[in-house]
Amino acid sequence: MAVYTQVDDEELIAFLSTYDLGPLLACKGIAEGVENSNYYLHTGAGSFILTLYEKRVAEVDLPFFLSLMEHLAARGVTCPLPVKNKAGVALGRLAGRPAAIITFLDGYSVQHPEAAHCAALGSALAEFHLAGADFALRRANALSVDGWRPLFAPCASRAEEVASGLGALVEAELGHLEARWPRDLPSGVIHADLFPDNVFFLGDRISGLIDFYFACTDAYAYDLAICLNAWCFDAEHRYEPEKGAALLDAYRRRRPLAAEEIAAFPTLARGAALRFLLTRYVDWLNVPPGALVRPKDPREYLAKLRLHQSAVDARFYGLAS
Amino acid sequence: MAVYTQVDDEELIAFLSTYDLGPLLACKGIAEGVENSNYYLHTGAGSFILTLYEKRVAEVDLPFFLSLMEHLAARGVTCPLPVKNKAGVALGRLAGRPAAIITFLDGYSVQHPEAAHCAALGSALAEFHLAGADFALRRANALSVDGWRPLFAPCASRAEEVASGLGALVEAELGHLEARWPRDLPSGVIHADLFPDNVFFLGDRISGLIDFYFACTDAYAYDLAICLNAWCFDAEHRYEPEKGAALLDAYRRRRPLAAEEIAAFPTLARGAALRFLLTRYVDWLNVPPGALVRPKDPREYLAKLRLHQSAVDARFYGLAS
Repeated sequence: MAVYTQVDDEELIAFLSTYDLGPLLACKGIAEGVENSNYYLHTGAGSFILTLYEKRVAEVDLPFFLSLMEHLAARGVTCPLPVKNKAGVALGRLAGRPAAIITFLDGYSVQHPEAAHCAALGSALAEFHLAGADFALRRANALSVDGWRPLFAPCASRAEEVASGLGALVEAELGHLEARWPRDLPSGVIHADLFPDNVFFLGDRISGLIDFYFACTDAYAYDLAICLNAWCFDAEHRYEPEKGAALLDAYRRRRPLAAEEIAAFPTLARGAALRFLLTRYVDWLNVPPGALVRPKDPREYLAKLRLHQSAVDARFYGLAS
Repeated sequence: MAVYTQVDDEELIAFLSTYDLGPLLACKGIAEGVENSNYYLHTGAGSFILTLYEKRVAEVDLPFFLSLMEHLAARGVTCPLPVKNKAGVALGRLAGRPAAIITFLDGYSVQHPEAAHCAALGSALAEFHLAGADFALRRANALSVDGWRPLFAPCASRAEEVASGLGALVEAELGHLEARWPRDLPSGVIHADLFPDNVFFLGDRISGLIDFYFACTDAYAYDLAICLNAWCFDAEHRYEPEKGAALLDAYRRRRPLAAEEIAAFPTLARGAALRFLLTRYVDWLNVPPGALVRPKDPREYLAKLRLHQSAVDARFYGLAS
């Protein structure tokens, strides 16, 4: 849950007066996202989400994220749409933070995704990739292979606190992935964090995608590998092949995978698992005193990484050219 | 902020199917209240608040609270109204907790109340007391004078950790108040926790009162003394007489104070300050590991108590019969 910055009612009323959204009717901090402070906002014009961007989101990246949402929404991908103020600007400042008002999206996250949800996700992810193909802005993925070693190094010495043998395993895996990471796969805008929290359903249908604050320019198949890690394991972190197949098959029906994407998939799956293992590991060791967010357990992604290490090739995931 | 119990989407859909509120459209944990888990709930029938009652609220008391909201709403006090399910029952179970759906109330809390807000509060509090006069249920105030010593005793030895001389001060104050506490003042249902968080405004007007989970049967003037403590001090905990006068004058215009209520007011103000000093002190010493709520500083109420100790009689507050 995440409301890091409290908004004063007087400041909020002044901020809202720069928009054509009518009077403030209600504003409640909500437990959504872990990077920013989010509020449910009710005004004379309807329901919205007010987001205050906290320091983990670089202010220089905000135009990329907001433009992306506009780009996708204009191409039929249901996602929050930034609301522009009277001056035509989507990004303002509130309570000392960059702030934006975005449209409120109905839908709810699925805690226990079934194969049908994974199939819906596969289609939505492919449509997201296709809709973003002509997006002009670019943003490097700071959390891809070149970023992992610098992320791990400063706190490598504490790896035994989290799991026995973790330090050696990560070192070996970094070496493996750095030597083999595919650099020329079909690329474009990827979501890069499309966990169940960030996909809204109404019944069996996806009603929208949210939280584009890790979006970046990277390989499409890597985004698919992140989703496979996030959606296709059970509560004991065991791979569920029928969910993986549902995700991959639905994706490929909308956006066929090239032979090199298929060949690279086991490497991408290992990389995706390592990326979340490492960021969770760093967060786990660095819980600030008085933190209002409980860190997620990095060992979940250690288990997933070990699974992917056991995959001989892409056929493990049911992928064949 | 407070979302202690996570609600599973499947459980929620099943729970909602016992109501005539249409399909689930959205549900977001909100940072409101510190005793319970609250969710913003959007269904085919509109906006609601879903409350899961946590263990600090005794289940046996829930019918009192829910009936009170119905009683008040029927008498024109704007407050959340419990929604009954298809069986005509307002209290259900969800995620292993007692749970209720209540109507969503527009309005927002005022962070820095002015005298005009205090005046509006005084009128609303008097109307609340008058509307509750014929409420049939009773609930003893466990946090009144007889409850303070048992609350303090188990952790009295740690008082020096919080403020120098605190233990002796509390001991003396307990003795003073136990000897003088008025037992026969006009009584009925009081809110007992009407802090700025629990009063919604739209512009200068009060749009509703919320959070009745400390409501109980006690002296009306004690409720007024709680409000004076909560609303009429500045950020440095200095008493602001013009706000106090605005609160008390507005209250008395709707519900005149009897001579014995006026005479007792300085004692009630000290008691109200001690009550919040003690509960905050206990919470301060007992922050559970991994708590998602930051405890409030008890020393705020130590400063307020000292102010009230300096009042010679009710004229200090501008009160005269």
